[in-house]
Amino acid sequence: MTSNDFWLTNLVTPSGERTAMNVAAGRIVGYGTPPAGTTVIDANGRLLLPSLIEGHVHLDKVLWGTPWPGYRSGTTVKERIAREKAYRTSLSTPVETRGALLVEAEIAFGTGHMRTHVDIDTDWGLSNLEAVLKIRERYAAQIDIQIVAFPQSGILASPGTADLLDAALREGADLIGGLDPAYIDGDPKGSLDIVFALAEKHGKGVDIHLHEGGPLGLFELDLIAERTSALGLGGKVTVSHAYCLGDAAPDALAATAETLARSGVSIMTSAPEQSMPPLRPLWAAGVTVFCGNDNIRDTWSPFGTGDLLERANIAARQQNLVSDAELHAALNLITGATAQVMGLEGYGLAPGDRADFVLVDAPAVPETIASPPRNRVVYKAGKLVAGTL
Amino acid sequence: MTSNDFWLTNLVTPSGERTAMNVAAGRIVGYGTPPAGTTVIDANGRLLLPSLIEGHVHLDKVLWGTPWPGYRSGTTVKERIAREKAYRTSLSTPVETRGALLVEAEIAFGTGHMRTHVDIDTDWGLSNLEAVLKIRERYAAQIDIQIVAFPQSGILASPGTADLLDAALREGADLIGGLDPAYIDGDPKGSLDIVFALAEKHGKGVDIHLHEGGPLGLFELDLIAERTSALGLGGKVTVSHAYCLGDAAPDALAATAETLARSGVSIMTSAPEQSMPPLRPLWAAGVTVFCGNDNIRDTWSPFGTGDLLERANIAARQQNLVSDAELHAALNLITGATAQVMGLEGYGLAPGDRADFVLVDAPAVPETIASPPRNRVVYKAGKLVAGTL
Repeated sequence: MTSNDFWLTNLVTPSGERTAMNVAAGRIVGYGTPPAGTTVIDANGRLLLPSLIEGHVHLDKVLWGTPWPGYRSGTTVKERIAREKAYRTSLSTPVETRGALLVEAEIAFGTGHMRTHVDIDTDWGLSNLEAVLKIRERYAAQIDIQIVAFPQSGILASPGTADLLDAALREGADLIGGLDPAYIDGDPKGSLDIVFALAEKHGKGVDIHLHEGGPLGLFELDLIAERTSALGLGGKVTVSHAYCLGDAAPDALAATAETLARSGVSIMTSAPEQSMPPLRPLWAAGVTVFCGNDNIRDTWSPFGTGDLLERANIAARQQNLVSDAELHAALNLITGATAQVMGLEGYGLAPGDRADFVLVDAPAVPETIASPPRNRVVYKAGKLVAGTL
Repeated sequence: MTSNDFWLTNLVTPSGERTAMNVAAGRIVGYGTPPAGTTVIDANGRLLLPSLIEGHVHLDKVLWGTPWPGYRSGTTVKERIAREKAYRTSLSTPVETRGALLVEAEIAFGTGHMRTHVDIDTDWGLSNLEAVLKIRERYAAQIDIQIVAFPQSGILASPGTADLLDAALREGADLIGGLDPAYIDGDPKGSLDIVFALAEKHGKGVDIHLHEGGPLGLFELDLIAERTSALGLGGKVTVSHAYCLGDAAPDALAATAETLARSGVSIMTSAPEQSMPPLRPLWAAGVTVFCGNDNIRDTWSPFGTGDLLERANIAARQQNLVSDAELHAALNLITGATAQVMGLEGYGLAPGDRADFVLVDAPAVPETIASPPRNRVVYKAGKLVAGTL
């Protein structure tokens, strides 16, 4: 099973072909018939998927391994930010422990790559970053982790945070984050200027949490697109959530979608029940949309398991993606689209790609999204990291 | 494990008490400390839930055990009815086989009671009823099944169907169904008069599929409530889906909710992504709302597993039920509320109740709804029917 050069026989590819796959030195060599004398592992007819990709998760927020915190509905975002700070400060279980449990669960579900946001502010300093850097190091053989320095308490609203973000980017964060430039920082232009200045200074990408709705949110998307184009950051900028797209009238949506596509700004959605960005018109305009699990049993939400196939299932149900092509597109939300946004080298199932893949008990991709199979056999760089064949 | 008189020790009740439960002769005797010399089974700290109840499912429609049918979005209800008829007619796998697979899956998930709708029309005749009666007989020791005679092709729209519904109620159906009296039958009053006349004639309850939106749907709810009161059928009439409640403005919703509560008409929802009846105002008005899985991988929908805890999770997410009280209420959607609507005798976890229950790997009810645990240990009438302790 841990041989460096082997054939996985009797598997079904995402396009429906029954074949065998040759893996060597951590890469996919090709497909065909195993020659005599090679190591052969029978996949027993399982479906082959590329490694799943977590596009947005908060490893420092998850509360696994701690008691149930209790929840209240009807609270504002600012109340929830304050509540989270107080609650997490009271916890004795560190980020390194809590986050590791979620990373392990995601690995077992087949996640091979992850983008996580870490809270940076004047209370936390860089402590969340440091904890997640340790988690990244510890699980480096099983999962690749991208880190976004996320100003959960705002930037202008929390003086000193800009310097901490600057330090975070020097010390290992891969992208600069942002948060509701009007609601939190009170200054859309000023807040975004800081974010993009830091991106330019460090040559890093951007991933901004934008919950603001209606014309305000659409206006901020325009500001983000402008700055993306001006700095040549097309393809490296993401707006997470973008509920304003879910609420927009068709004409406004079409105009903004065109702007996002032209400037190369992608959209991350956790497929929320309210105000989810509508996939079909965004796809039609050429906007890259991808998914992430976002909050998993933290102070923000009691829900979630860390399973990205479940997330794709939720996205498909939310937007009534039912045809085979649409269900393949739902899988792409947690595979190819996210890989493109994260700039992953050698991602995929083509010869020469990294041997990061999952085998699932399902006959084909549509069934996999419609009712995600429980058992997963997970390989990273050609090595079995979870499940058993 | 199959002893007739035993104690289950080391379990946690829904209210959070760690205790032991005595079961004898298929009933719950009580809680406390097992006396010496009795048969003791260690529940290992699992959470005790009452048997889950499937409030709405279509055993004759499920396509498990047959190839993936392929789906198209954007079709009308009438197109889907016609498509279903043609597709199911072409199938060689009978209802008895397909439906049994779903019943077995539900039993394994902890479903101990089920209400299923069977298509009755001039093409099918009573064949779907006959097949589901056989399934009911076959699984009688594991699950109790209530059958609704459902005019999927309409009543007035399909002359001869009223007589078949009459025959179905004589031959074993427990309730009379109905379907979109305006869209399908073209005559709300005429269609509902037939449904309620059959209910009165046979002394049976009513469960009507109502997809019609806006003022039309609300008007039909009034007609249904009127007839329910006039015939003294309060508590025995359900409207399934009722999307019109999900679309209604607050004032209209409040007025209709008051009418439903007063007349004793309950609402079944599968917690759809669009137009789900809003639970909080319905609960506040005293309307009984319950959940069902509805279509599971049939020609109508590619989604679903048959797991009612997953359905309660979907309902909770759709309506942001997050407090402990709200998450308990979400569990009630698939337990107590449905039991009340289905008129189940001896349902529950009190001394004297039937020993129909599930043990799950979760510390408490809120966690069980927030991320449904996979493993289930299922008892029916005091006998283990699925899972292992």
